[in-house]
Amino acid sequence: MAGNTFGKAFKITTWGESHGRGVGVVIDGCPPHIPLTEEIIQQDLDRRKPGIGPASTARKEEDLVRIVSGTFRGLTTGTPISLMVENRDAKSSAYNKIKDLYRPGHADFTYQKKYGIRDWRGGGRASARETVGRVAAGAVARKLLSIKSISVISYTVQLGGVRVSTIDVAQIDRNPFRAPDQTAAAEMAKEVAGIKKAGDSIGGVVEVIAQGAPPGLGEPVFDKLDAELARALMSIGAVKGVEIGAGFKAAESLGSENNDQISPDGFLSNNAGGILGGISNGEPLIARAAVKPIPSIETRQQTVTIDNVATEVSVKGRHDVSAIPRINPVCEAMVCLVVADFYLRQKTIRGF
Amino acid sequence: MAGNTFGKAFKITTWGESHGRGVGVVIDGCPPHIPLTEEIIQQDLDRRKPGIGPASTARKEEDLVRIVSGTFRGLTTGTPISLMVENRDAKSSAYNKIKDLYRPGHADFTYQKKYGIRDWRGGGRASARETVGRVAAGAVARKLLSIKSISVISYTVQLGGVRVSTIDVAQIDRNPFRAPDQTAAAEMAKEVAGIKKAGDSIGGVVEVIAQGAPPGLGEPVFDKLDAELARALMSIGAVKGVEIGAGFKAAESLGSENNDQISPDGFLSNNAGGILGGISNGEPLIARAAVKPIPSIETRQQTVTIDNVATEVSVKGRHDVSAIPRINPVCEAMVCLVVADFYLRQKTIRGF
Amino acid sequence: MAGNTFGKAFKITTWGESHGRGVGVVIDGCPPHIPLTEEIIQQDLDRRKPGIGPASTARKEEDLVRIVSGTFRGLTTGTPISLMVENRDAKSSAYNKIKDLYRPGHADFTYQKKYGIRDWRGGGRASARETVGRVAAGAVARKLLSIKSISVISYTVQLGGVRVSTIDVAQIDRNPFRAPDQTAAAEMAKEVAGIKKAGDSIGGVVEVIAQGAPPGLGEPVFDKLDAELARALMSIGAVKGVEIGAGFKAAESLGSENNDQISPDGFLSNNAGGILGGISNGEPLIARAAVKPIPSIETRQQTVTIDNVATEVSVKGRHDVSAIPRINPVCEAMVCLVVADFYLRQKTIRGF
Amino acid sequence: MAGNTFGKAFKITTWGESHGRGVGVVIDGCPPHIPLTEEIIQQDLDRRKPGIGPASTARKEEDLVRIVSGTFRGLTTGTPISLMVENRDAKSSAYNKIKDLYRPGHADFTYQKKYGIRDWRGGGRASARETVGRVAAGAVARKLLSIKSISVISYTVQLGGVRVSTIDVAQIDRNPFRAPDQTAAAEMAKEVAGIKKAGDSIGGVVEVIAQGAPPGLGEPVFDKLDAELARALMSIGAVKGVEIGAGFKAAESLGSENNDQISPDGFLSNNAGGILGGISNGEPLIARAAVKPIPSIETRQQTVTIDNVATEVSVKGRHDVSAIPRINPVCEAMVCLVVADFYLRQKTIRGF
Repeated sequence: MAGNTFGKAFKITTWGESHGRGVGVVIDGCPPHIPLTEEIIQQDLDRRKPGIGPASTARKEEDLVRIVSGTFRGLTTGTPISLMVENRDAKSSAYNKIKDLYRPGHADFTYQKKYGIRDWRGGGRASARETVGRVAAGAVARKLLSIKSISVISYTVQLGGVRVSTIDVAQIDRNPFRAPDQTAAAEMAKEVAGIKKAGDSIGGVVEVIAQGAPPGLGEPVFDKLDAELARALMSIGAVKGVEIGAGFKAAESLGSENNDQISPDGFLSNNAGGILGGISNGEPLIARAAVKPIPSIETRQQTVTIDNVATEVSVKGRHDVSAIPRINPVCEAMVCLVVADFYLRQKTIRGF
Repeated sequence: MAGNTFGKAFKITTWGESHGRGVGVVIDGCPPHIPLTEEIIQQDLDRRKPGIGPASTARKEEDLVRIVSGTFRGLTTGTPISLMVENRDAKSSAYNKIKDLYRPGHADFTYQKKYGIRDWRGGGRASARETVGRVAAGAVARKLLSIKSISVISYTVQLGGVRVSTIDVAQIDRNPFRAPDQTAAAEMAKEVAGIKKAGDSIGGVVEVIAQGAPPGLGEPVFDKLDAELARALMSIGAVKGVEIGAGFKAAESLGSENNDQISPDGFLSNNAGGILGGISNGEPLIARAAVKPIPSIETRQQTVTIDNVATEVSVKGRHDVSAIPRINPVCEAMVCLVVADFYLRQKTIRGF
Repeated sequence: MAGNTFGKAFKITTWGESHGRGVGVVIDGCPPHIPLTEEIIQQDLDRRKPGIGPASTARKEEDLVRIVSGTFRGLTTGTPISLMVENRDAKSSAYNKIKDLYRPGHADFTYQKKYGIRDWRGGGRASARETVGRVAAGAVARKLLSIKSISVISYTVQLGGVRVSTIDVAQIDRNPFRAPDQTAAAEMAKEVAGIKKAGDSIGGVVEVIAQGAPPGLGEPVFDKLDAELARALMSIGAVKGVEIGAGFKAAESLGSENNDQISPDGFLSNNAGGILGGISNGEPLIARAAVKPIPSIETRQQTVTIDNVATEVSVKGRHDVSAIPRINPVCEAMVCLVVADFYLRQKTIRGF
Repeated sequence: MAGNTFGKAFKITTWGESHGRGVGVVIDGCPPHIPLTEEIIQQDLDRRKPGIGPASTARKEEDLVRIVSGTFRGLTTGTPISLMVENRDAKSSAYNKIKDLYRPGHADFTYQKKYGIRDWRGGGRASARETVGRVAAGAVARKLLSIKSISVISYTVQLGGVRVSTIDVAQIDRNPFRAPDQTAAAEMAKEVAGIKKAGDSIGGVVEVIAQGAPPGLGEPVFDKLDAELARALMSIGAVKGVEIGAGFKAAESLGSENNDQISPDGFLSNNAGGILGGISNGEPLIARAAVKPIPSIETRQQTVTIDNVATEVSVKGRHDVSAIPRINPVCEAMVCLVVADFYLRQKTIRGF
C-alpha cells in the first residue's frame, strides 16, 4: 500500500525519479469545463525551477510541461489529466561517489531499509525534483479555485535566524527570498552569502495564505481542513513542523486571548487561522511550514557505507543553500490541492 | 465524502455525539490472533475520562467499553472490531442557553455553516467526547504494537507559560500534568490555580515518543510517516501545531547542525525525530503537538446568535481548564494508530 | 487491508457476527437534513428477517434496529450514522458438532485458511446475518434516493428450474417468492415443497430495477455504474453471477439487435440496462443476480475435519431452503447503496 | 470523485484518450525487486493491438510501451511505475461526421450528459484504446504473480451463437479466436465472415482461469475475491455479465449438486470457481465475461443529434467485427490485477 496519491475528490498521483526519464502526475477528479493550457501550468513550474532564488542549484532544466491527456480544445473534460516533464540535465555520474554510502539528513538510509533497493542517482524518488508533479497539479487546482475567487499565496517569514518584522505582500516579489519585508530580505542576503561561503545550508519558515475560501470546507473528524493541511505540508521533503493560525503561540495563550470573538460583521481576530473544528470559517486560511536546512553540504560529516563501515562525506555539486524560496510554490501547490479537494467534497454535503 | 475514517490497513471509523446514545469505533484490518479484552481497552479509556487531571470537568462518565464484535474467546479474528461506550451523564439542558449562539473558539459556527444543522447538545460531534473512539481503537493498536515491542508514551512539555527543563519519564506519573519534571509540575499547579480562579483556560504542548519502531515505516511521497503523524495529531480538536524531531528549531539551524550524522553504531543525534524522507530510520519517533486553550471560559466574550445578532456569552459548566493532560492519551492513541497502520502497510512491500 | 467498507461518498462499514453480541453498520457521508427514524429502517429489516418466505429458518430474531448516532430530532446531521441490531436468539450449541469440520459450500474452510482462526458459531462473519447491516444502511440510502424520486425494487425471475413468464410487479407481493407471475409462483411452491422434503436446497435469479436515476451516474473507467453494481451484488454471500440489461444474451446477439437505437423521445429499447460506457443513460437500471442454493442441507456430504480427516456431514437446524426471497431486500439494499453513492459522487463533477 | 484507479495495494491509475497524445498508466504499490523490462510488458500489449484476430480494425498502432519511472537497472524499486504508449495512427477527421450525434450502443450520449463535454475523436476516453493501460499494468501484475507460480489465461467459450464443446488449452493459439476447440473455431470463422459481410457485429463469452492462487485471497465482506473479479471484468467496456464458477447454472442446481464436497486430497468439484465466502480456496479461479457485440456497425440505425433531432447513422471505418479475441488479454489483465492486489493485501493479515 504505497502512498503516491493525494486527495479524494481532486486526486493526484505523482511519479518519477530525479534521474529517470521524467517526472509527472495524473489528476483524477478535476471537473470538466476548466480552461487549461500548458502555459497556465508552466507559470507555476517556472517558479520552482532550478536557478530560481539565491544560491540555487546550477542544474539547468527547462521543465517544460506537456498535457498528455484530459483536455479537449483548451478545456478539461472530466477525464484524467496526465502531465509530464522530461528530465534532461540529469548528470548521474556525479552521484557515483555517494552511491555506496548514506548521506546524513537524506533518505538514502531509509529507502534502502524500506525497499532493499534504491535509485541513488540524484536522490531518486526522494529528490526535490519529485515536487514537479505537485506543482503542476497544484497549478490545475489553483486554476479551479480561481474560478471561485479563491487565491493562495506564500512568503518567507524566516530564513535561518532572520525573521520578518512586517508582512507587506507588495514586497514579496522585490527580493529573491519571497520575503514580505525588504529590510529582512537584506539581512537574509547577508546570511545566505556567509553560509554559502562556509559550504553549509539553512532552513526557514514559509507562511501560506488562502483567501476567499467559503465557510464549510473540511471533513471532521479525521479529514479536518487543518489536519489535511498539516499532512500536505509535512509531506514535502524538507518540512519538519506545521502550524495553523496562532500555532505554537496558542499553547501559551489564555482562552480569553486565543478565542476569536465574533461580531455581526465577522470574526474580530484570526488566531484560528480560518479553521474551527476542522472546518473553514470564511476567514483567510493561514498555515506555516518549518523548513529544515538542505542536507547536502560541503562540510565534512560522519556517515557509514551501505556495508556499515564508517566513512566521511562532503557533498559537492549542484545544490541550493536553502530550500527557500523554491519550496514556496510547492507549499502553495499543496494548499491549493487541499482546498480544491475539500471544495469538491463539500459539494456532496450541501444542497442535496 | 465525509472524513470519519483513519488509516488504510489498520482502519478505524469513529461515530457518536456528546449527548447522543453513545460513542464508538469500528476497526477494520486488525490482524487475527491478537489477545484482546475489554480490560485492555478500558485501561487507556480510564486515562482520558472526565475527572482526570487538575480542574477537569465534573461530568461523571464511567466510560465502560464493550467489544461488540471481532473477537472470539479473547482473540481477534480478523473481522471488524466494533467498540462502544454508552453516554450516561449527558445533561443537555445545560446547553439550552447556548443553542442559538456561536461560542467563540468552538465549532458551533462552522458546523452550522457546513451542514446547515447541528446537534448543539454538548458540542455534538465536535465535542472532545468524540475522542473516546480514538482512544479505544488506539488501545487495540497499542496492543498490536506491543507484540512487536513498539511502545508509545507521551508527556507534557509545556503548560501555558511553563516549560519543562528536563525530561525524566519516571516523573510523569508523579504529578497530575504528566510533566516529566517535578519542578515544572509545581509551577504548572500554581498557573492552573490562578487561571481557574480567573475563569479562563490555558493550552500547552504534548510530546509523544514511539520507541522500537523498525526502519522502513512510512509511504512516500504523500503518506510519509511524518505527514500522517501531523495529520493524526492535527485532527485532534484542540491541536494547532505539530513538530517532528527538531521541528521549528530546524528552521534556524545550519545543515551541519541539523543533519544527524551516522556511525556504525547508529545515528549520532535525532533531530530528524526518527524520520528521513518520510520513512522511519529506527530511532525513536518524536512528535510534539501544540494544544490551544479550552475555548469554553467564564470570561464574557462577544459573539453573535445564529441570526447574526450581537450578544455576549460566558460559558459556565463542567469544563476543564486545560485539555492537558486528558489530551495526552488521545495523542498517544493517534500515534499508535499511525504506527500500526504503517507497520501493516510495510508488509505489502518487503519480502515479496 | 480488510474489506468491510463499501462506497466512497455514501460509505458504509458493516460489522458483526452471527452469534456475537450484535450486528451493525456505520454510514459515513449521508448528507444532512434527511428525515430518518428507526421505523423507516425497520421496514426494510422486517423484509429480510427470519421467518419471511417459505421454508425459512425457524430462528426468531426481532431485529430491532437502534439509531445510535448521526440524527438529531429526526433528521440526519451529516455526522456518522451508527445503526445496531442485537443478536438475541443465537443458539451456538447447535454448532458444536460442526466446529471441527468444514461444511461444503460454506466459508468455513476459507476463513480458517485466511485468518487461522474463525468464530464457527453460526458461520460467524460469513453468516447471512451479516446482511442486516447492509439492509439497514440500504434503507437510509433508499430514503435519500426517494427524495430524488429514485426507487429500487426487486423480484424473483427464477427459483430453481422455474422461470417467470411475465413481469407484473403488481403480483410480487401476492406470493411468498416475490415472483411477478402468479402462475410461476404456484410452480415454485411445488418445487420448494419437494426440495424441502428431500432435505435439499435450491437457488434462483433475482432481478433488481432502479427507476428514476438521472443520466450521468457512474465513474469511468473502473468505478463504472455497471462495475459497481456487479461488485455490490456479487459481494452478497450466495451470488455467483451478475448481468446488466441483456447480459449473457447480448453475447449471442448481433450489434444491430443489441444496440438501443435512439429517438427524440428517448431510447427505443433497453438492452443496455440503462448503462452506456459505465454511465446511466436515464433508462431504468436493470441487474440480475444468480443465487446459488443454500449450502446447508440435510443430505449427507463428504468433507474433512480441520485436521484433514475424511468425514461426512448432514446439516440439520434452522436453515432456509432457498436464499430467495430473503435475499431480495439485500439485493435492493446493495443497489440503493450504489446509486446513492454515485448520485453524491456526480455532484463533484457537474455545475462547478 | 472520479474512478480511474483500480486496486488498493497494487493500485493502478489509467489515463488517456483514443486520439490524444497517448495512453498510459501509473502503478503504485508494486513491490521492489521484481524484474521488469519493456519487453515483458510489450508481450501482453502485442496480444491486444489492432490487427490481431479476424476482422480486426485496420488501425495501425505499434503500441510501443515506455517505462518512464519506477525501475532501476531492470528491477522495480517500490516507487510508482509510469508506463506510456503514444498514439500515432489517430485519424480524427474520420470522426467529423459523427461528432454531433450519439452513436447507438456507444457512450457518446452518457459522456455528454455526465460531463457536458466530450472528446468525440475516436470515442475519447470511452474508446477500447483505454485498455492499453490496463493491459500494460496487467503485464506487471502477471510478472509479479509468476514469481509465486500463479498464472492467468483466457479463452473464448462462445462467439455469437457458437459455443465450444471442449476445453483443450493446447488449441487456443491454433485459431484466431482463442477458442479451445478447433471444431468450434471453424464454425466461428464462418459466422464471422457472414456477419462482416452484412456490416454487423457479434459478441461472445470469455473464460478466464487463474491457477496457483493460494487459499486465503479476498477480503470479506465487500472486497470479496468474486466481487472484485466481477467489478474488474464488468469495468471493461463491452462486458455485460460476469459469472464465477457454475455461475447462472448454480441458480437451477440443488444444494447437493452445487456444493463442492471435500476429501483429504482436496475439493471434489469446482462449482464455486475457487471461491468460498469471497475467499480463494486453492482451486483454480474461474470467471466468465459476457461480451456484447461491437456497437459500431454499418447497418443504418436511428439516433439523434446532440440537439435531439432524429437522424440515422451508419458507422463505417476501422472497426472490429467482435471485441473477441482482442478483449481476451484485457480480461486476463484485470484478473491479474485483482489477484496481485489480494495477494499483497493478504500479507497484512497473515503471520503478524
